[in-house]
Amino acid sequence: MTFSAISRRHFLKTGALAATSLPLLSPAFADPPARKVGFALCGLGSLSTDQIAPALQQTEYCRLAGIITGTPAKAARWKAQYNLADNCIYNYDNMDRLADNPDIDVVYVVTPNALHAEHAVKAAKAGKHVLSEKPMEVSAAKCQQMIEACRAAHRQLAVGYRLHFEPNTLECQRLAREKALGEIKMFEGGFGFSIGDPKQWRLNRALSGGGPLMDVGIYVLQAARFVLGEEPSLVSAVATNTDPDKFHDLEESLTWQMKFPSGVLASCSTTYRIGGMNQFKIFATRGAFGLDSAFGYDGIRGYRGDGQEIAFPHINQFAAEMDDFALCILENRPTKVPGDEGLRDVKIMMAIYEAARTGKTINLS
Amino acid sequence: MTFSAISRRHFLKTGALAATSLPLLSPAFADPPARKVGFALCGLGSLSTDQIAPALQQTEYCRLAGIITGTPAKAARWKAQYNLADNCIYNYDNMDRLADNPDIDVVYVVTPNALHAEHAVKAAKAGKHVLSEKPMEVSAAKCQQMIEACRAAHRQLAVGYRLHFEPNTLECQRLAREKALGEIKMFEGGFGFSIGDPKQWRLNRALSGGGPLMDVGIYVLQAARFVLGEEPSLVSAVATNTDPDKFHDLEESLTWQMKFPSGVLASCSTTYRIGGMNQFKIFATRGAFGLDSAFGYDGIRGYRGDGQEIAFPHINQFAAEMDDFALCILENRPTKVPGDEGLRDVKIMMAIYEAARTGKTINLS
Repeated sequence: MTFSAISRRHFLKTGALAATSLPLLSPAFADPPARKVGFALCGLGSLSTDQIAPALQQTEYCRLAGIITGTPAKAARWKAQYNLADNCIYNYDNMDRLADNPDIDVVYVVTPNALHAEHAVKAAKAGKHVLSEKPMEVSAAKCQQMIEACRAAHRQLAVGYRLHFEPNTLECQRLAREKALGEIKMFEGGFGFSIGDPKQWRLNRALSGGGPLMDVGIYVLQAARFVLGEEPSLVSAVATNTDPDKFHDLEESLTWQMKFPSGVLASCSTTYRIGGMNQFKIFATRGAFGLDSAFGYDGIRGYRGDGQEIAFPHINQFAAEMDDFALCILENRPTKVPGDEGLRDVKIMMAIYEAARTGKTINLS
Repeated sequence: MTFSAISRRHFLKTGALAATSLPLLSPAFADPPARKVGFALCGLGSLSTDQIAPALQQTEYCRLAGIITGTPAKAARWKAQYNLADNCIYNYDNMDRLADNPDIDVVYVVTPNALHAEHAVKAAKAGKHVLSEKPMEVSAAKCQQMIEACRAAHRQLAVGYRLHFEPNTLECQRLAREKALGEIKMFEGGFGFSIGDPKQWRLNRALSGGGPLMDVGIYVLQAARFVLGEEPSLVSAVATNTDPDKFHDLEESLTWQMKFPSGVLASCSTTYRIGGMNQFKIFATRGAFGLDSAFGYDGIRGYRGDGQEIAFPHINQFAAEMDDFALCILENRPTKVPGDEGLRDVKIMMAIYEAARTGKTINLS
């Protein structure tokens, strides 16, 4: 049975559901898909270990079909834990062999930021769809390489914006788009944490491409763009570093401002220095609404100034994200978190860094 | 009995209390001062009518001793309501006659921003101490005129920073200064409201000198400077205006960022367009703390991330501010909210406007 045949059958049964933007986690099909979409995890750090692999077990349309790692000890551990056959274990040098493995449909790239393009391009050349963690890459040019490679291979490219599948976040988007509390006028948001181990790749610019903006500030940028539904026309930024030994050649904290074509102003913060910053708030003419906390794997809580509730139950965001991508592949429809979306964020973050470096407001239009 | 004699007697009885920064509203004296300090209110708009005059009735060391108004109908109304004699009612053209009225010690300037210097200088020349509402004036040069006039007349000049006397605000300052939750790393704050009547002076740049930054954003600036205890070295700003007919030649909303010498970043917002923005939050290495709401006449509520409380009871801030200034005069000691403090805010606000206008970060050092 080919994918297009599966796709058609699914589409016929799920046409109505596919139109909703809520994640498809509940049993929605009369019968399950003929086979689950095979995911290979590329990069077995803590995100893969603690979040993505467990989430895969909760998906409806996905299964762990392979791993790609540069660390033989990790390969052995995962092989035992997930009962993996030898022929679905790869390293970064033999990813071309993925082409010979029909059980692997998607490579989920979870390596350090500056390696995403290399691994995504290899996956695409091996004929695999690509799901890349965020930030998509460390420069617009490298994002473009990923987009081109997937396009040339006729494979889909998605970016791991898990909150696009989180129902409280989607509710904020709905409230904004429908002007439920009036016109949006301002946005405030921040995301930060106190980073530990000074030797981790996140603190190595060659691998991370930047500091907290790239790692967690991107959630605030995403929230603003996602909820407001427009692109910033202008950014301004100020960075700080009180511990240059630890934050070598990276910002420790950064605040930035964005102006949107509608006139909305966004005031945003990110930091590697302190915790407790994890929220966004949208100020509309008839009241404010937002999430606090907003960006974690769980504990997301909403509020709205008109007394109504935003209280959708917890979901496994990674499972929702992977199930959605699997359905996009099965049904041959485009992902709502494509490479172009990741590229837009990277372009804006580069402008934010330029604004901080030059002390000048940067026009994005 | 002269002021210096009163002052000395008070000082002997209140030396210990005077050392605390908490407002002296409770009965703290074995016997009351020989006479209360006489305040003349200059400008009888809603702030004088609804806040300051009622607050005067709650003071311990002050009394309403006169009014200065350009509106005869207001003079008549106040005369009746407060049982004022004809010889303590002035207009803006005969303020020089204040010199002949020994019952008036202080002129509280509550006129539109761009008239503060004119009225403060007249009051000082008539030998009166001056308490000016914030913002002190619309330019640094005009603030300087006020400072010079009061210095030349050997009279005190204070700015109406009522929150310097508000105990929850003072507690936040203490927590910051004592590093109770660790070192401060970031600050976030915003204050705005939806402005009504398009004909009011606040929307007339010639009288206001600016939009919400001058009117309410100044509270966020003050909170940052007051709590952190240092001066910003750099500002960046973005302004917006979605309704140029209403906000003619003024910003509708503005976000700005400040960097402090210690490395703290502040992310700040102000607006005339929406309500519900009235808070500041301080991010320290062991937790966050702040006030929400932060800047109103009442309803100020604190919180701190370590589970302890910030919950000082409501006070009448205007009464505390006026009582403190009265005691400064009675005891011949300097106010903690002097003209220099008002000048600093105005200089920073001018830099914020320059940053928004030019799209360039402005160095303040």
